Amino acid sequence: MPFAYSRTVHFPDTDAAGVVFFARYLSICHEAYEESLAAAGVPLGTFFADYGVVVPVAKSEATYLRPLVCGDKLRIDVTPVALSENSYAIDYVIWKTGAAEKRAAVVRTEHVCISSKTRERLPLPASVAVWVQAG
Amino acid sequence: MPFAYSRTVHFPDTDAAGVVFFARYLSICHEAYEESLAAAGVPLGTFFADYGVVVPVAKSEATYLRPLVCGDKLRIDVTPVALSENSYAIDYVIWKTGAAEKRAAVVRTEHVCISSKTRERLPLPASVAVWVQAG
Amino acid sequence: MPFAYSRTVHFPDTDAAGVVFFARYLSICHEAYEESLAAAGVPLGTFFADYGVVVPVAKSEATYLRPLVCGDKLRIDVTPVALSENSYAIDYVIWKTGAAEKRAAVVRTEHVCISSKTRERLPLPASVAVWVQAG
Amino acid sequence: MPFAYSRTVHFPDTDAAGVVFFARYLSICHEAYEESLAAAGVPLGTFFADYGVVVPVAKSEATYLRPLVCGDKLRIDVTPVALSENSYAIDYVIWKTGAAEKRAAVVRTEHVCISSKTRERLPLPASVAVWVQAG
Repeated sequence: MPFAYSRTVHFPDTDAAGVVFFARYLSICHEAYEESLAAAGVPLGTFFADYGVVVPVAKSEATYLRPLVCGDKLRIDVTPVALSENSYAIDYVIWKTGAAEKRAAVVRTEHVCISSKTRERLPLPASVAVWVQAG
Repeated sequence: MPFAYSRTVHFPDTDAAGVVFFARYLSICHEAYEESLAAAGVPLGTFFADYGVVVPVAKSEATYLRPLVCGDKLRIDVTPVALSENSYAIDYVIWKTGAAEKRAAVVRTEHVCISSKTRERLPLPASVAVWVQAG
Repeated sequence: MPFAYSRTVHFPDTDAAGVVFFARYLSICHEAYEESLAAAGVPLGTFFADYGVVVPVAKSEATYLRPLVCGDKLRIDVTPVALSENSYAIDYVIWKTGAAEKRAAVVRTEHVCISSKTRERLPLPASVAVWVQAG
Repeated sequence: MPFAYSRTVHFPDTDAAGVVFFARYLSICHEAYEESLAAAGVPLGTFFADYGVVVPVAKSEATYLRPLVCGDKLRIDVTPVALSENSYAIDYVIWKTGAAEKRAAVVRTEHVCISSKTRERLPLPASVAVWVQAG
């Protein structure tokens, strides 16, 4: 079963069309990714800073299925997918919860582990590799 | 006792100095304000849209006491303060929770109820007036 | 020749890894889209609000090629692509300008014109259709 | 004469009330601050990262005078004010430009130079001290 992150839509997530701005769906997925890593014991403070090894997003794709408004309750399912010893993908489904649960978006990000100095590929940190394998 | 909202610091809240960007403290306070209103039964979807009556922020002030990093656990205390029949203030304290709870910021916002068409002052919506009085 | 939008990377665009947060690349592309529409005479204030006809992003995909830091100078090339009478895509290239100009990201968004009430597809507003055709 | 920064309001600056979100006014002021520093020759890439010496915002206050919508043209006047050898304030006026120029907001931030390790006060970096004195 995928890791599930619950989140309410807040006013700063919205734009002048009255709904969540499309790029914010990706930020919300990143929050879910962080919570999933934290639940697996990965220390966020160092993982998401630059201590020589970084795992930036190399690609993202998103299909936006449903508008979201302030106050909507969301559940984001997070599924890591191993790609190589240096990289992984994450599949997200953003669900609008409530009486009838509906998919609001489907998102995928790809991540590559590199040296922040040389930009050369590096093996994943051990705790992250375990998290990917458990996905 | 003030309304309390719990929140984890996420990566999109941070900036290149490695800590939460100062303007984000205000967004986080606004989330707490929304949750406090929702707990009092105010319908967020309509309150924070433009249906002729809006209650924009007229002033804000913030004292930033402590840097916050990705993964920090926060509690935001929200205390509404009646100012007039058209306006109210909100006092926020952002606490960094944990073994030793510490204040990370003290924030105040002032809100004035107006017509979005004429910009003239209007009495507060009843449900919001009740929320202010209960603060 | 595609429409070109110039932009400096600002501190609020960055995250604790010291570089522009991946979702912000999409926001920067949206700014370029707005400037391209404005240059073609499309009134932004009404186009990007909800007056019954909205053109939300239905899909996005991005390949992130290069990290960007505070102060970097960017040029974003914007090329609209007609898809149907209800929809269009936009191809973006984000260039890091300077002595040696380099691609920082390649982004594509897809947009579908709908009724904000019924969510049914509608023909594009005339001024937007002209903009797409001129792309 | 204060440093002047020009900026268009973009869609990601707005919220579901159709106008610029109040915390974004502060981000826009920070952009103006960066441009003012850059014009004075302060290297942004290192100044706004954590290399041991940081100058975080200690206080902010803002009065919001006028709503801003997507497409509005702004000019932000930036005036640094010396406070001590460790600190300075910045006064901002956000003007909505056009036929009749009008103030949209008045903002003040206070900045204190500290060691990011010990949090003790440090003298301002020389290039920044020069910028403050020239304000």
